[in-house]
Amino acid sequence: MQFSTSFIPDIRFGSGLFGNLADLIGPFEGVRAVLIVMDGFLASRGLAKVVAGKLAEAGIEPRLYSDFSGEPKLEHLRAATAIAVGTDIVVGVGGGSALDIAKIAACCAVSGQDPMFYALAANPLPNNPLKKIMVPTTAGTGSETSATNIFAGPEGKKLWIWGAESKADLVLLDPELTISLPPNLTAWCGMDAFIHAFEAATNRNAHMGAKLYAHEAMRLVAGSLEAAVKAPGNLDARGKVLLGSCYAGIAIDNCGTAVAHNISHAMAGLAPIHHGLATALGFEATIGWLADLDTADVNEAARAIGLQNAQALPGFVSDLMDRCGVERVLPKAFERFSSDDLAAEMRAPENQPMRRSTVREISDADIDAFAARIMSLPKML
Amino acid sequence: MQFSTSFIPDIRFGSGLFGNLADLIGPFEGVRAVLIVMDGFLASRGLAKVVAGKLAEAGIEPRLYSDFSGEPKLEHLRAATAIAVGTDIVVGVGGGSALDIAKIAACCAVSGQDPMFYALAANPLPNNPLKKIMVPTTAGTGSETSATNIFAGPEGKKLWIWGAESKADLVLLDPELTISLPPNLTAWCGMDAFIHAFEAATNRNAHMGAKLYAHEAMRLVAGSLEAAVKAPGNLDARGKVLLGSCYAGIAIDNCGTAVAHNISHAMAGLAPIHHGLATALGFEATIGWLADLDTADVNEAARAIGLQNAQALPGFVSDLMDRCGVERVLPKAFERFSSDDLAAEMRAPENQPMRRSTVREISDADIDAFAARIMSLPKML
Repeated sequence: MQFSTSFIPDIRFGSGLFGNLADLIGPFEGVRAVLIVMDGFLASRGLAKVVAGKLAEAGIEPRLYSDFSGEPKLEHLRAATAIAVGTDIVVGVGGGSALDIAKIAACCAVSGQDPMFYALAANPLPNNPLKKIMVPTTAGTGSETSATNIFAGPEGKKLWIWGAESKADLVLLDPELTISLPPNLTAWCGMDAFIHAFEAATNRNAHMGAKLYAHEAMRLVAGSLEAAVKAPGNLDARGKVLLGSCYAGIAIDNCGTAVAHNISHAMAGLAPIHHGLATALGFEATIGWLADLDTADVNEAARAIGLQNAQALPGFVSDLMDRCGVERVLPKAFERFSSDDLAAEMRAPENQPMRRSTVREISDADIDAFAARIMSLPKML
Repeated sequence: MQFSTSFIPDIRFGSGLFGNLADLIGPFEGVRAVLIVMDGFLASRGLAKVVAGKLAEAGIEPRLYSDFSGEPKLEHLRAATAIAVGTDIVVGVGGGSALDIAKIAACCAVSGQDPMFYALAANPLPNNPLKKIMVPTTAGTGSETSATNIFAGPEGKKLWIWGAESKADLVLLDPELTISLPPNLTAWCGMDAFIHAFEAATNRNAHMGAKLYAHEAMRLVAGSLEAAVKAPGNLDARGKVLLGSCYAGIAIDNCGTAVAHNISHAMAGLAPIHHGLATALGFEATIGWLADLDTADVNEAARAIGLQNAQALPGFVSDLMDRCGVERVLPKAFERFSSDDLAAEMRAPENQPMRRSTVREISDADIDAFAARIMSLPKML
């Protein structure tokens, strides 16, 4: 046995924590200015204003960047970086986009380099980035505990920046911030978190160190996602899904994902679709095929959520998606594409790491079969 | 629910890892000199020489400090600090003593302050200590993942230095380094790790975040300690106990200990005794009393190691100690003391935090009963 796990930031969990951001910043010495990168939706609810007011009262200059929506684009990274220059801490509040923008801005602001300088690991990140506090509000991406950051490059191409230097120093998990997430997004993001954990615990990179987090994440999300979807104000369920998503982020930070993410990234290459929904559809389309290989890791993952063995997984996953109201439908934009188009994307070079990491070898015939299964879904979203 | 968990360093696990220290130091930029703080026993086996040779080959100046044994004393901290000045990384290799010396030296070397400046939290540690790599070889203290460091002050009084700045950047878990630990020490240290985990998971500070590590630590140690004691060369068992001890360190770093450590620290106040043995004796003397309270946390801890419920714990603990050959005896030096002496130490101010954190209230009558139970053991070690 040989493995390594990457460092895990301080984690603070509790309802209402974010409102006390000014107090939490206290331990970081000599802080004069803080940039808050916040989803526009959250900022419009007045959340930023309250926190900014408290920071100002504490003698700390608050800055805000919330002029973005959807997947982060290069221009968002550049804009956030420009505002981050001169601050001491960058706080990301929102879904994966807000967090990724904040993490990259904290690096670029100290080096003076453009984000493209670091894209696809062209150059190492600076080793003295600004302090980073990450406050996830969607309970899905796990960006708060990972070293990976995704954005769209100059020609709209999906790019990534990777490095331990981009990881958070402090993660705030405040279940209250997730209450406003609508049921369908709660379900999609929660399924994404569950699948992060499952894939990290069962792919070719899986190891004992990461399985500790992955299994706990699976337990937390499987045990509470339905309640969080059906009773949006259930803070206990919201909190467990949020914590599960954070642990799932640790799991993928160490072991990455597998076939379901090969499919969801391939789908995103065709037309816009919510990442969590795409991943859930890809997972349901492949879990039976994967469980048939019957590996020790897959059986262990099944038992972690109280199932008898791997063979019980496909039924459990479909039932979980049913209970959480996940409709098996694609956006209308997918009408323009065939299953061959999806299969081609699944074979694209940038999606090969997730194909190769999958514990069962994915043949070309498998790809065609999975693509056909996905593209046979109704296109009505 | 509200909790926080303190950051966890990079962890690398694998047999033979320490021999490749020079390669592992690569990612730390611009390293010119490294101080290795190593138990004299390990250094005498030539281990330091091999690693020093490889560091020198890699253009890194190796320095060694191994002139200590037993509990760290102030003079050891000062000597290690003097050698650490001018280095970039301090590597601690050994039991808790070597690790604690290394962690403190890494802080004092940059600030130029004497260790006493930081004792009992008199002043905050410097926020830019030298990089620290911790390599535990006894699988017990968990110092590699904790922020607490123990030493004997000028008058021999037990003192501590605490702070996140003293925590490791990288933990190397190399099961090969633990093979030479004799069976009795393996058993005592392993029991200490198990009890760290149990107490952190069940005391008044216990929370969901720390229980993840505590329960895994209990499973790992309970499942492999007997094999590690009986077959010292069993690398799989050695590795699991070592990993369990590391996770138990994370658990106490967040939640601290309880009654068994109140007793073992009190015993150390009377006469020298191995900390792991003292803690195991204190644990066995109190676990039935604790389990009678029947809290949710204690039941959960019992189930984590496959027991039905809390009531099964006392039998399990005694059986584990039997299987690991832990004799219930005290050092001869304890002949000079009565159970009243031990009870007085248990009531001493410095041992009150562990009394207060215990989930069942410890009455004065309880203290007298526990002290009588411990002091009735044969004094023949």
